[in-house]
Amino acid sequence: MTQANAGTQPSNPLLVVGSVALDTVETSQGKRDEILGGAASFSCYAASFFAPTRLVGVVGTDFPVAHEDLLRAHGIDLGGLERVPGRTFRWAGRYAADFNTRTTLDTQLNVFEAFKPKLPAAWSETPFVFLANIDPVLQLEVLTQVKRPRFSACDTMNFWISGKRAELLRVLERVDMILLNDEEARQLSGHSSLPAAAKAISALGPKAVVIKRGDAGALLFQGDDVFAAPAFPLDNVVDPTGAGDSFAGGFMGHLARTGDTSPASVRSALVAGTVLASFCVEDFSLDRFRTLDAAAIRARIAAFASLVGFEAPRI
Amino acid sequence: MTQANAGTQPSNPLLVVGSVALDTVETSQGKRDEILGGAASFSCYAASFFAPTRLVGVVGTDFPVAHEDLLRAHGIDLGGLERVPGRTFRWAGRYAADFNTRTTLDTQLNVFEAFKPKLPAAWSETPFVFLANIDPVLQLEVLTQVKRPRFSACDTMNFWISGKRAELLRVLERVDMILLNDEEARQLSGHSSLPAAAKAISALGPKAVVIKRGDAGALLFQGDDVFAAPAFPLDNVVDPTGAGDSFAGGFMGHLARTGDTSPASVRSALVAGTVLASFCVEDFSLDRFRTLDAAAIRARIAAFASLVGFEAPRI
Repeated sequence: MTQANAGTQPSNPLLVVGSVALDTVETSQGKRDEILGGAASFSCYAASFFAPTRLVGVVGTDFPVAHEDLLRAHGIDLGGLERVPGRTFRWAGRYAADFNTRTTLDTQLNVFEAFKPKLPAAWSETPFVFLANIDPVLQLEVLTQVKRPRFSACDTMNFWISGKRAELLRVLERVDMILLNDEEARQLSGHSSLPAAAKAISALGPKAVVIKRGDAGALLFQGDDVFAAPAFPLDNVVDPTGAGDSFAGGFMGHLARTGDTSPASVRSALVAGTVLASFCVEDFSLDRFRTLDAAAIRARIAAFASLVGFEAPRI
Repeated sequence: MTQANAGTQPSNPLLVVGSVALDTVETSQGKRDEILGGAASFSCYAASFFAPTRLVGVVGTDFPVAHEDLLRAHGIDLGGLERVPGRTFRWAGRYAADFNTRTTLDTQLNVFEAFKPKLPAAWSETPFVFLANIDPVLQLEVLTQVKRPRFSACDTMNFWISGKRAELLRVLERVDMILLNDEEARQLSGHSSLPAAAKAISALGPKAVVIKRGDAGALLFQGDDVFAAPAFPLDNVVDPTGAGDSFAGGFMGHLARTGDTSPASVRSALVAGTVLASFCVEDFSLDRFRTLDAAAIRARIAAFASLVGFEAPRI
């Protein structure tokens, strides 16, 4: 955990539950077969630049040991990653030339279908928890196994909003923050205006609501406090898969690193998430992360600050 | 021109050429018939909060004098607004519930069809010039009538990009900045990546390229310098008509006000444009502007600074 503990500030462990997958991805920049993917893989790797990270998930007997080694080598604790008989979760998709439209070609749940998250006993007091986009029933099972985390967040998707709404609402009652995209926010709230949607979602439980808008950036609502961050503009997008998960991972990893859950700190964490997402999309799978270090992250944080900085107009 | 000259900084006149129209608009918030619209109306009004503004355009004999009075009362010089026999330009459109999709129901060029912009002789040395979205042939005629402006900018649209490309390219060789939306930027450049599109467009002439993205904000490219500004999130959008024109007007008005065309000043001006656009959409036509004053603009500039402010994450 050299990367995770390199900082000078206190750093608290972060627990992430979600999918670990083998993805087949086609973009205008190329095609890759059965590469490492899954929300937990991206989130954990992004988070582990900032904080000790614990992964809860499941893979099949066909999951390459090299992928486990990659995650472990970056300090991710795989004590909650089960390996069970059967095939690993698989996803296949294709992106349009502008990367804004994605077509899912295949989804095979495989070992994920019967997944019941089981946390190692020693993880039950993990202070920071991220429930990536999985069945809200499983998200609840994780929340039941951790004792009052200091800060918990969840992701979700249209499939659960329409199919398991009651269970999702029980999750929302218990988490401090939700991250979802603009269409999901509209679907969950019934409001087309994003500020109105965020207000309605916050009334369901989470005091912070993050609306992810892809290359249009993100909005963070904390009561009446609103923060807007553009995406980092890139010339060389290769594969957007995992961008939202890397955003959430960098976000939660930075929160865990500082241990500060004040509104100002949540804003800073969102910028960390934006920066990690910008690296993620520069290559397939987790490939860009493999050569990433704190200095490069620091340089892009500075570039982001320059991207959005201005002298206030006068009148 | 009390508003325009209220500041303490130097203020240079801004000339705007574009449409003055009667709009029929339907949004989820209501329907209005034959209200004051047109790119020049919105741009001039927004600009005139910052700088002395000169309007070049044409209306028919049916154009209500009350509309002229409204513009003149805000300090806009109508010395270039012709009134000719015939009917005023009319546009009718309807917006989807989320305001992101607009259907044009009717366009009647009317007196605009035979429009030839003629600048009053005294305006030929106007230092700041904004060519709103009109036929590039007319934009060129205006550029021919002003002697080396200190800073000129143009808007355009898909119709001219495909139909009058050669003429548009001649405009681009002569302006300092172009403002256009993301789809137009892709169409004009042939690049789907916005940074790549901006670079290609800048190579055609304008040293600054502004890509307007509606509620996703705006991107400003000045060589290698990139600025990203989110839109100001609003609960109460009433009518998006004129938002892009008000953005351009506030932008160019602020540039004219300061007289400073450095990259940092262009960034500040973009924020002024963002703020003026955010007021524009809060009511139909120019109605929100009618009750707007410098104090309210100043307050929203402060709110915008708070919206995007953050402490840099640490790693």
